[in-house]
Amino acid sequence: MTFKGLGQWSQTTLESSVPTKKKILIQLDCDDHASVFDGVVAIDAGVDHLFQYSGVRPPEVRGLIHGAMFTRGPADLHSTAIFVGGSDVSIGHEIASAARSVLFDPFRVSIMFDSNGCNSTAAAAVLSAAKHVELASGKSLVLAATGAVGQAVCTLITSLGGQVIVGSRSVARAEETIEKLGHLGVPIAGLAPLGIEDESSLRIALQEATAVFACGAAGVELLSSDLLSAGVNLRAAIDLNAVPPAGLFGIGVTDKSLQRGNRFDYGALGVGGLKMKIHKHAIQQLFTGNNHFIDAHEMMKIGRSILSA
Amino acid sequence: MTFKGLGQWSQTTLESSVPTKKKILIQLDCDDHASVFDGVVAIDAGVDHLFQYSGVRPPEVRGLIHGAMFTRGPADLHSTAIFVGGSDVSIGHEIASAARSVLFDPFRVSIMFDSNGCNSTAAAAVLSAAKHVELASGKSLVLAATGAVGQAVCTLITSLGGQVIVGSRSVARAEETIEKLGHLGVPIAGLAPLGIEDESSLRIALQEATAVFACGAAGVELLSSDLLSAGVNLRAAIDLNAVPPAGLFGIGVTDKSLQRGNRFDYGALGVGGLKMKIHKHAIQQLFTGNNHFIDAHEMMKIGRSILSA
Amino acid sequence: MTFKGLGQWSQTTLESSVPTKKKILIQLDCDDHASVFDGVVAIDAGVDHLFQYSGVRPPEVRGLIHGAMFTRGPADLHSTAIFVGGSDVSIGHEIASAARSVLFDPFRVSIMFDSNGCNSTAAAAVLSAAKHVELASGKSLVLAATGAVGQAVCTLITSLGGQVIVGSRSVARAEETIEKLGHLGVPIAGLAPLGIEDESSLRIALQEATAVFACGAAGVELLSSDLLSAGVNLRAAIDLNAVPPAGLFGIGVTDKSLQRGNRFDYGALGVGGLKMKIHKHAIQQLFTGNNHFIDAHEMMKIGRSILSA
Repeated sequence: MTFKGLGQWSQTTLESSVPTKKKILIQLDCDDHASVFDGVVAIDAGVDHLFQYSGVRPPEVRGLIHGAMFTRGPADLHSTAIFVGGSDVSIGHEIASAARSVLFDPFRVSIMFDSNGCNSTAAAAVLSAAKHVELASGKSLVLAATGAVGQAVCTLITSLGGQVIVGSRSVARAEETIEKLGHLGVPIAGLAPLGIEDESSLRIALQEATAVFACGAAGVELLSSDLLSAGVNLRAAIDLNAVPPAGLFGIGVTDKSLQRGNRFDYGALGVGGLKMKIHKHAIQQLFTGNNHFIDAHEMMKIGRSILSA
Repeated sequence: MTFKGLGQWSQTTLESSVPTKKKILIQLDCDDHASVFDGVVAIDAGVDHLFQYSGVRPPEVRGLIHGAMFTRGPADLHSTAIFVGGSDVSIGHEIASAARSVLFDPFRVSIMFDSNGCNSTAAAAVLSAAKHVELASGKSLVLAATGAVGQAVCTLITSLGGQVIVGSRSVARAEETIEKLGHLGVPIAGLAPLGIEDESSLRIALQEATAVFACGAAGVELLSSDLLSAGVNLRAAIDLNAVPPAGLFGIGVTDKSLQRGNRFDYGALGVGGLKMKIHKHAIQQLFTGNNHFIDAHEMMKIGRSILSA
Repeated sequence: MTFKGLGQWSQTTLESSVPTKKKILIQLDCDDHASVFDGVVAIDAGVDHLFQYSGVRPPEVRGLIHGAMFTRGPADLHSTAIFVGGSDVSIGHEIASAARSVLFDPFRVSIMFDSNGCNSTAAAAVLSAAKHVELASGKSLVLAATGAVGQAVCTLITSLGGQVIVGSRSVARAEETIEKLGHLGVPIAGLAPLGIEDESSLRIALQEATAVFACGAAGVELLSSDLLSAGVNLRAAIDLNAVPPAGLFGIGVTDKSLQRGNRFDYGALGVGGLKMKIHKHAIQQLFTGNNHFIDAHEMMKIGRSILSA
């Protein structure tokens, strides 16, 4: 807590004649160069001034957040917000947690956490599948679930009450991921590990699943034609890989609710439009209050309201 | 002096039809991440575009300032200005000096120097005390005077003609501070050193002082209840410590001209409102000309005009 | 190609009701601190939001450019553009090339390459000379042609069809420069090397030349009074050195089309006004399409249209 900031509190009323404050977004990014992508989306979402911070590390967060908390009076703090991004989702998580822990009443600013776009992407993927299948009562298979997007997809489906088969190359890595999610407070009762190199287990999982999500690295095929066709109960297949070959055989990058038999397919582009809207709306929502913390769950809510609008 | 910049001079008249230039503030900050605090204040003061430079070192200043000097014609240079900040006041001082030394007629831009908020804070503290006591004719006791804010308080009071007891833990450090101020051109005839661990000297100082300023680190009590009550002639007590315990026993962080006996007390919050106003007005003043150098003295003038408005 | 970006494509039509996008310029600068000069010019050219990236290296360009390509729909990409600057022209060249190679239809953004102002300066210098002499049919002498501005001057004159004597201290360095330009795709048939320490060769070159350009370092005299007077056929002399002594003896920094005998002289200031206008117009042109690549040649065209306006 710094002296200079706190003083602002006492003068808030004196400045009530000042017009609405400019919307300032403080982009905290762990990469050497703060994301251009996140910057452009911020501007398109209506941010007036973007402060880009590159190479941010968790111990530096306190001072940066204090600077955001203590400059404007509480009544104006909804016009200052934090965006946590960058390609390393673990560091992003630490930054976002550090930022939250610094805040106290009434000096709060809203925070959005979307490192590498993982949360907005996961929310868009889950909502796309949910158009075609009741995820809460079914079983979803998440492939390459160990990555940031995969983890967020698992988290969102389990929060809906759905069961999730957490797929990774080895069952050990799948188990680690579940453990990690547990440590983050995700209820893990509905999560079951799967090593997809065990093909018979994978076939069983595919037969049980009503939705499948491929969250793997670009250009890696996760399910062949033969395996995908084993998914007789699949009603939705979401492939988040934008670079050929497809993660799920036969799904095109632009597929968007494309019906193949009983299954509705989405490629990366088919999900991406909703992802972008969620990202932008989330930025806009930051500035509707000074107490938002927008993570994957909040982005789900935002996506749902976009879809129902 | 670069070729590309000088050329602008010759075309100034050609562009007289261009509307008012946008206000650009160039934030030169020595920290790894330029201050969020200073950035937000700049925006709230009406800056149109903020260029934030982090990790700035004195040798790099020349090129940065040339870029500011040589892009707009002299008639438009009042719309470009420099803010020198960051947590290291010594480096800030070097940066500010380097920046000033680069300027020449007619290619000048205004500069504000407020590393770590020390100058605006000191100005607000001195002006707050000055509401209740004639600092010019009295003796002020400055505790933890070795720090950036303390030094600025000493400088301002001595520039008013007042006497200052420069307090530090050891008298040696107090003497060093006075010497340092002398090197910076501050008239030191009115400054006397005090080692506050010598309690009898401290008590004498307290008896003589009509104002006391506590400029210490957060959470360090500089005067106990017993010692403070020895200040029988104190008319103003300013405690710039915002984190409990108070630097001056019994002074609350939100005290603002709170009378206790013959003494008027200010806590960090009580001074902070004026500090913020001085900071903002100083930013605004930068853009009223291309030849301002706004340091602690100028911030005093700004604060005085705010108080008399 | 990232998933998150591509998704935008599919939603472009959905957002057609959004008003014109803000103009975002992404400044990629190889220096520790992105150029203030280039930043201010960008703002004065009407850029709404400037993203300054310092210390950019070629391998980092791909991710930064992807962020620019994949956030706005193709119909809006003319409102996002790239400026490549910084004091190291070689790195700038690599950055600009890397940026171009990443682009593909329809996800293109315009790029301007003007590291250290070399291209805009060269264009202004060549156009200034061209007011007085037919460069295409004559022979130009370029002194200190090995530097960034010198190379660009050689390139521009040869592209007009003119002959160029490429002057350097040693003939070997002049030959290297010609070779280097050849590798960059410049037609080198019209380029002849000259080591200016060989005074008899220099005198011959001066007698043949109808225009001379001094592109040397600040404060270095390249032609003495005696040598310059050997240039009996010179119709234009351009000295880009802004710091005394002049690069060409007797030419004043503010000379602008100043006639001395049969020769029209320009100093750095005399060229600089046009250089600044070219720079600004080039920035503005970036935002008129999403497929511009503005290098020295394009800046020549821009300068020509400014002069004929």
